[in-house]
Amino acid sequence: MTTRRPTQLRPVTIEPFPSAAPGSVLISAGNTRVACTAGVSRELPPWLAPKPGEAPKQGWVTAEYAMLPASTPQRKKRGADSRATEIQRLIGRALRAAIDLNKMPGVTLNIDCDVICADGGTRTAAITGGYVALALALRHARKLGWIERDPIVGPVAAVSVGVIDGIVRLDLDYALDVAAEVDLNVAMTHRGQFVEVQGTAEHRPFSRKQLDAMLTLATSGIRKLMAIQRRALR
Amino acid sequence: MTTRRPTQLRPVTIEPFPSAAPGSVLISAGNTRVACTAGVSRELPPWLAPKPGEAPKQGWVTAEYAMLPASTPQRKKRGADSRATEIQRLIGRALRAAIDLNKMPGVTLNIDCDVICADGGTRTAAITGGYVALALALRHARKLGWIERDPIVGPVAAVSVGVIDGIVRLDLDYALDVAAEVDLNVAMTHRGQFVEVQGTAEHRPFSRKQLDAMLTLATSGIRKLMAIQRRALR
Amino acid sequence: MTTRRPTQLRPVTIEPFPSAAPGSVLISAGNTRVACTAGVSRELPPWLAPKPGEAPKQGWVTAEYAMLPASTPQRKKRGADSRATEIQRLIGRALRAAIDLNKMPGVTLNIDCDVICADGGTRTAAITGGYVALALALRHARKLGWIERDPIVGPVAAVSVGVIDGIVRLDLDYALDVAAEVDLNVAMTHRGQFVEVQGTAEHRPFSRKQLDAMLTLATSGIRKLMAIQRRALR
Amino acid sequence: MTTRRPTQLRPVTIEPFPSAAPGSVLISAGNTRVACTAGVSRELPPWLAPKPGEAPKQGWVTAEYAMLPASTPQRKKRGADSRATEIQRLIGRALRAAIDLNKMPGVTLNIDCDVICADGGTRTAAITGGYVALALALRHARKLGWIERDPIVGPVAAVSVGVIDGIVRLDLDYALDVAAEVDLNVAMTHRGQFVEVQGTAEHRPFSRKQLDAMLTLATSGIRKLMAIQRRALR
Amino acid sequence: MTTRRPTQLRPVTIEPFPSAAPGSVLISAGNTRVACTAGVSRELPPWLAPKPGEAPKQGWVTAEYAMLPASTPQRKKRGADSRATEIQRLIGRALRAAIDLNKMPGVTLNIDCDVICADGGTRTAAITGGYVALALALRHARKLGWIERDPIVGPVAAVSVGVIDGIVRLDLDYALDVAAEVDLNVAMTHRGQFVEVQGTAEHRPFSRKQLDAMLTLATSGIRKLMAIQRRALR
Amino acid sequence: MTTRRPTQLRPVTIEPFPSAAPGSVLISAGNTRVACTAGVSRELPPWLAPKPGEAPKQGWVTAEYAMLPASTPQRKKRGADSRATEIQRLIGRALRAAIDLNKMPGVTLNIDCDVICADGGTRTAAITGGYVALALALRHARKLGWIERDPIVGPVAAVSVGVIDGIVRLDLDYALDVAAEVDLNVAMTHRGQFVEVQGTAEHRPFSRKQLDAMLTLATSGIRKLMAIQRRALR
Repeated sequence: MTTRRPTQLRPVTIEPFPSAAPGSVLISAGNTRVACTAGVSRELPPWLAPKPGEAPKQGWVTAEYAMLPASTPQRKKRGADSRATEIQRLIGRALRAAIDLNKMPGVTLNIDCDVICADGGTRTAAITGGYVALALALRHARKLGWIERDPIVGPVAAVSVGVIDGIVRLDLDYALDVAAEVDLNVAMTHRGQFVEVQGTAEHRPFSRKQLDAMLTLATSGIRKLMAIQRRALR
Repeated sequence: MTTRRPTQLRPVTIEPFPSAAPGSVLISAGNTRVACTAGVSRELPPWLAPKPGEAPKQGWVTAEYAMLPASTPQRKKRGADSRATEIQRLIGRALRAAIDLNKMPGVTLNIDCDVICADGGTRTAAITGGYVALALALRHARKLGWIERDPIVGPVAAVSVGVIDGIVRLDLDYALDVAAEVDLNVAMTHRGQFVEVQGTAEHRPFSRKQLDAMLTLATSGIRKLMAIQRRALR
Repeated sequence: MTTRRPTQLRPVTIEPFPSAAPGSVLISAGNTRVACTAGVSRELPPWLAPKPGEAPKQGWVTAEYAMLPASTPQRKKRGADSRATEIQRLIGRALRAAIDLNKMPGVTLNIDCDVICADGGTRTAAITGGYVALALALRHARKLGWIERDPIVGPVAAVSVGVIDGIVRLDLDYALDVAAEVDLNVAMTHRGQFVEVQGTAEHRPFSRKQLDAMLTLATSGIRKLMAIQRRALR
Repeated sequence: MTTRRPTQLRPVTIEPFPSAAPGSVLISAGNTRVACTAGVSRELPPWLAPKPGEAPKQGWVTAEYAMLPASTPQRKKRGADSRATEIQRLIGRALRAAIDLNKMPGVTLNIDCDVICADGGTRTAAITGGYVALALALRHARKLGWIERDPIVGPVAAVSVGVIDGIVRLDLDYALDVAAEVDLNVAMTHRGQFVEVQGTAEHRPFSRKQLDAMLTLATSGIRKLMAIQRRALR
Repeated sequence: MTTRRPTQLRPVTIEPFPSAAPGSVLISAGNTRVACTAGVSRELPPWLAPKPGEAPKQGWVTAEYAMLPASTPQRKKRGADSRATEIQRLIGRALRAAIDLNKMPGVTLNIDCDVICADGGTRTAAITGGYVALALALRHARKLGWIERDPIVGPVAAVSVGVIDGIVRLDLDYALDVAAEVDLNVAMTHRGQFVEVQGTAEHRPFSRKQLDAMLTLATSGIRKLMAIQRRALR
Repeated sequence: MTTRRPTQLRPVTIEPFPSAAPGSVLISAGNTRVACTAGVSRELPPWLAPKPGEAPKQGWVTAEYAMLPASTPQRKKRGADSRATEIQRLIGRALRAAIDLNKMPGVTLNIDCDVICADGGTRTAAITGGYVALALALRHARKLGWIERDPIVGPVAAVSVGVIDGIVRLDLDYALDVAAEVDLNVAMTHRGQFVEVQGTAEHRPFSRKQLDAMLTLATSGIRKLMAIQRRALR
């Protein structure tokens, strides 16, 4: 277990990760480690592809989430599962909220979040680190001249909160997550507004009051994560 | 579009649906129609199966969600997609919150939610109707003598809320959903406690104040849905 | 079991079914219930697609058959199986026989037959109901101006016949089907001509004389089904 | 095209085929060539497997049908398709009619029909040749002592008939099949009784009179095929 | 087991095989039998397809390898497996070495190697027989006028060698292959140069000296195979 | 391109990699980086599983190879492809040669090789790094008491060699690999014996003399890699 105070984040770092992608960072939160890599391409998904002769009107951001087999003590089989599908849809929505898609016409950002070590909070780490990778890949796209104006609306970061033994706690590791009565993942912008709120009663339903306390704690945690993002992007 | 007041539900009915399953209802919310069917079996999923010679300690509730090809104006291809995967995980978690799994050892409840006509709010209708199907299937399991004590902790129902043109609205149909800046799905118990809260900023992030207003409106809507569930179960 | 006379159909109804497809009916034959829905699109299958610059010469009719999980007392798993594959090929061939494909150039009719409750005779009910859905969808296509001339050659309906304990019987329900020595599915036009004849010896081979008796009984049953089709299309 | 008389079979041979299976023949009908191989195993399909401690009550016959890529002038892609699925279900049913499954408890016969050259009539050739392979494999199973009594009820053979330009013809090759208004596949026992009758109107529906003429012609053709089967089994 | 001398090939024949492909032979090596068929098409794989308006610069050779279910004493399930994947990549590379792809712009050669009876050495037989099928298909393509100049650089053939009980042996059948300490597959040109060398220590690693002896023996065996290829192509 | 001398390895390091697996290293060879992780389990593959009541007689080593999407400049799609299938079979065979499987009855070693950055030589790096991960995982298995005697026969390492512009070169990076006329991958034991030799003529066949030169150069390179392995295991 942990000796952190309930309102404290685990130690978080965002470092360069040596892949071949233009945006490539490793985010660590305690023992959780997620490689977040971002590339750009000029292929839009079919439902956004312009008609022949027309110019594209917008861009797209897509995300994939996977766990390396060695990321969990018991080896994780390769291949998509329903949990990963749910998580990568969450990551994609959260990161699209950081972007004005109209300012990157014809450009797709591919974010890959590969979990190297899983100790709770991998989906929120993927969002927080994924934003940094995305921002780096956009710098690359601007250098290539694919994008004229900066499409970033503002940073997005995410954290988990929960209730364990009646106490509201920030940034659950695996042991806390298993013990939690409620698990809430929150993604926010730098202005303190929500882009995703996903709360699940794991063992028993939660009250409006508990929800309020969790939202307040998540807000404070995300502010700290955004400072770490800013440093990584300097 | 709709002439409903922002705080009003669409007309909701829960009727018997003539399938072969012991719990089988059709829930309609405006033009949205979802067949919710529930059956019981004595096969546990592998991760809950007891060792040979041991008695099972708990039961399980599993849910599947699918859309009939004719449920949307443009024909929907058959087969699972990532949206359906995310939705059926939500339905399963919400319905498990209605049940004390320890009171149905060795029994699995299978809930199937098949969308017959989709006009917004299919996932929340599936939860609200799915609870009724589940309760009917449990009555059947008790008649069979598979379950001794009633495992129901209390009803669960769900509704969507959103913000359209700055106004908080209850129970979004498809036209409202497309126009919504925020889309929040809420599942609650009869005691007014949350089992799932899933909010997504579709176009722009939402404030704490908007979230609060949406949660309040969802709570009032769910109370009405629970009255309709009670009537269906009488 | 049944107290019907061997030459009697089960009670059959064809009613509107509230989906989003332009042709949408529910056919009931005793406890068997199949939702038959039909839509039109302007996408031809690849092998009929005209070369760029050329006009399409014909249209197409395609059918899919599936069973809802709750359609059988023991839950039916989702996903195609070899029985469904064989059945939907039969339905497609039978319904194409009702149509002059040259009179609907560039238009595809998609028929979906989703079994809601299965008590024998689902494939023949799907053909009989599918024809009605198809005819309704063609009216829609003509309103849209996609088709100029009515492509319908004439109605098609289908019924099963069999031999049980040496007696030739019409319209087998599940209990009869299990007991049958022979199972024959017949699809016919309104002129009393065959479009499909599929007979299978389930337990012992059948004589030419038995086949003749079954064909005669099927012909009389199909005439009654066509009267019900006509009423549904009025 | 062909200069055969309408009532004449193509030249048919059934020869040994050098595979590793105990029953292994190559059937040729004109240019059509199908390798029919049969093996025996002591694994029953799951739905027939006896409970632990109980003896199996019956056996099973299963069939697979596939086309080699080089069997058609335009290369055929590998892998199952819906046509093959429908055909192998037909072959399996027809061959099971040749066998008393209760006389081969616990034994499965696997028949594989691999089309080497396709010029019409592959499914009926597969049944006719498959019966010979099956009979050879049963001799092997009796030598192994797996089966005590001969489970063969009698031979089964099959042929196609059709109507081309109003004329009823036996044993359609590809050119005739394409031109046919009706295509009827018939499988029979040595006593002149039917095990499968599958007739399809390809371009226009067919009358009872045409069906009668086709059944009579098929019966005469199958008698000749059974003489060839007998010689192959001597 | 075998009474062949260690330096002797099994009896090898290459005969016409009656499929619908322009190049179609059956190669036998002892009891091993592989149908090698080759066709030509004017569809290039996507990564070689020229841009619209441009002429193709080269052609392609692709190979597939599969085993018929009856090719092994214990029935082989249909469908690709990892061993087949590895083998067909080897066959494709070896056969491409026989061809100047620049001399067949826009043409794809599809080689299919279907194992009819497997008694060791199927992959090398597939290369040796595949070359003959490929050469026959190219003659066909030249008759069609699809290819102007002969793209064949020279023949390619292959053989296996191994070490059994310390003795270097040519052309391993199944019994020898199972007993082998080393298994080496070698594909060569008519000039005695290597196009593929694949050696695997099955039970214990092998020395440089053993490798040298195996390469020498393989070279002599391949010379004999090329004489058989030449005869088959006359 | 590179300024290395033809007989020189790229800079190679083997460092700890922070996953959850007991054996977990990152091997770098120039810009190529592969995470090699190894775990142990007590589940044997089906074909080695002992009968009920019997003790297992041997263990197993299995390997998987995959590339992270960001490992190549153009994003690599997730999911197995035929190249990966061929490579992971090579890795598995090479690593099994390092082990006496009879000394680890009932234990399976799972090696995962995940390419983080691909600049040529990923499969040989996977073998060299995979051996170190395997050795670390075996130490763990011995601590758990699952294995009594050390099953390691000796280290295995691998390197690529090739011919570029007629010059034999060691350890090809991507630019050299693309230019190579021949590509040879060699895996050896510490006693200088071969466990795998895989040579492919990429553009033109290679002579016996070239093969000899490549084998000699590979042998010297592997000796250096084994020194790096030893240091990593100290």
